[in-house]
Amino acid sequence: MDVVILVYDGLTPLEAIGPFDILGKLPKARVRVVGLESGLVHSRGGTLGLRASAALEDVHSAEILVVPGGAAADNLAHDPTLGAWLRRVVPTARAVLGVSTGSLILAGAGLLQGVEATTHWRALDLLAGFGAKVVRRRIVTSGTLTTTVGAAAGMDAALAIADQVAGRDVALAIAQLLGYDPEPALAPGDLFKAPDARLHLARTGLEHP
Amino acid sequence: MDVVILVYDGLTPLEAIGPFDILGKLPKARVRVVGLESGLVHSRGGTLGLRASAALEDVHSAEILVVPGGAAADNLAHDPTLGAWLRRVVPTARAVLGVSTGSLILAGAGLLQGVEATTHWRALDLLAGFGAKVVRRRIVTSGTLTTTVGAAAGMDAALAIADQVAGRDVALAIAQLLGYDPEPALAPGDLFKAPDARLHLARTGLEHP
Repeated sequence: MDVVILVYDGLTPLEAIGPFDILGKLPKARVRVVGLESGLVHSRGGTLGLRASAALEDVHSAEILVVPGGAAADNLAHDPTLGAWLRRVVPTARAVLGVSTGSLILAGAGLLQGVEATTHWRALDLLAGFGAKVVRRRIVTSGTLTTTVGAAAGMDAALAIADQVAGRDVALAIAQLLGYDPEPALAPGDLFKAPDARLHLARTGLEHP
Repeated sequence: MDVVILVYDGLTPLEAIGPFDILGKLPKARVRVVGLESGLVHSRGGTLGLRASAALEDVHSAEILVVPGGAAADNLAHDPTLGAWLRRVVPTARAVLGVSTGSLILAGAGLLQGVEATTHWRALDLLAGFGAKVVRRRIVTSGTLTTTVGAAAGMDAALAIADQVAGRDVALAIAQLLGYDPEPALAPGDLFKAPDARLHLARTGLEHP
């Protein structure tokens, strides 16, 4: 299974590494970590560096493609080189996962026109502005395109893709390896009905390494 | 909040990056990614490179310390330099999180002698061999030391530490940012009562990037 994970300066690392460690466990997985150019990319604050082992121009297809979100996704949605690459590679994939604001990047490439999709709850209006049919759910799948509200939802969606491409036994074995919890102790409830105070704290009161 | 994340060649990236992206969101968080030496470390297959921005010798204390697991943890548990560093730094921390086989590294440093702890289910016997009191739960906390069965449990434990050090509102805001699910669709059930076939598949039939 040919898995391609896009990385870029200003990504949210967990949105790439969650799917990396889940989809990378698929039988016969080959994972490529792909940057706009090869070399190091950094999280927004520069705290974490991740190495892209390939550049866009090295990658012409993917069976599974992961597009993480992050602070830089809003701008990257307008990058013409990345947009052209996505329009070439997305049609080759049997599953494409836009995590959080990664869906803005897919939408900016014109790939979500009239398509049901979701994104991080901070960016729902931006996604609608690109012509997507916004659905307020954690995980939305339209054909080969899956989009999610955040990093944890991206991991759940990656497991669902493992289920789809490799079967339930493999997906549950991966969940077993990761120690998934059947009954989370600290659950935020309906993400789209969160109290205003929590949304305010999440937007402005937390760090974003 | 001074958060230190240990990284090393042969780690499971998600076990470092899950806590990184959760604890790094704590108000006034400063995160340091620390390697045995500074520079790039790689996941077992070499697919993913992570940059350690500091070396052990640069770090003398931590408010929160994260020790991820991985294929190399079994050997690293016997590393005398790392052991000495952990014996110096762990007592300075208000919370130490050993994710998965990261608990072997803590145990190898002599820090879990007679202490209730857990680890990845593949390594429960190894952990007992280091003198820990093995508890078959996903997450075990003994004083400042929290240990877990795997990457997803490590994220849940990181959220619990956020709850402990910064309060419920902050923890729920972080869960909101990550899009945590109150009702996972694909849950493996009791990790310690998994069917043999699933354990066999998890051990031998999956890739480990």
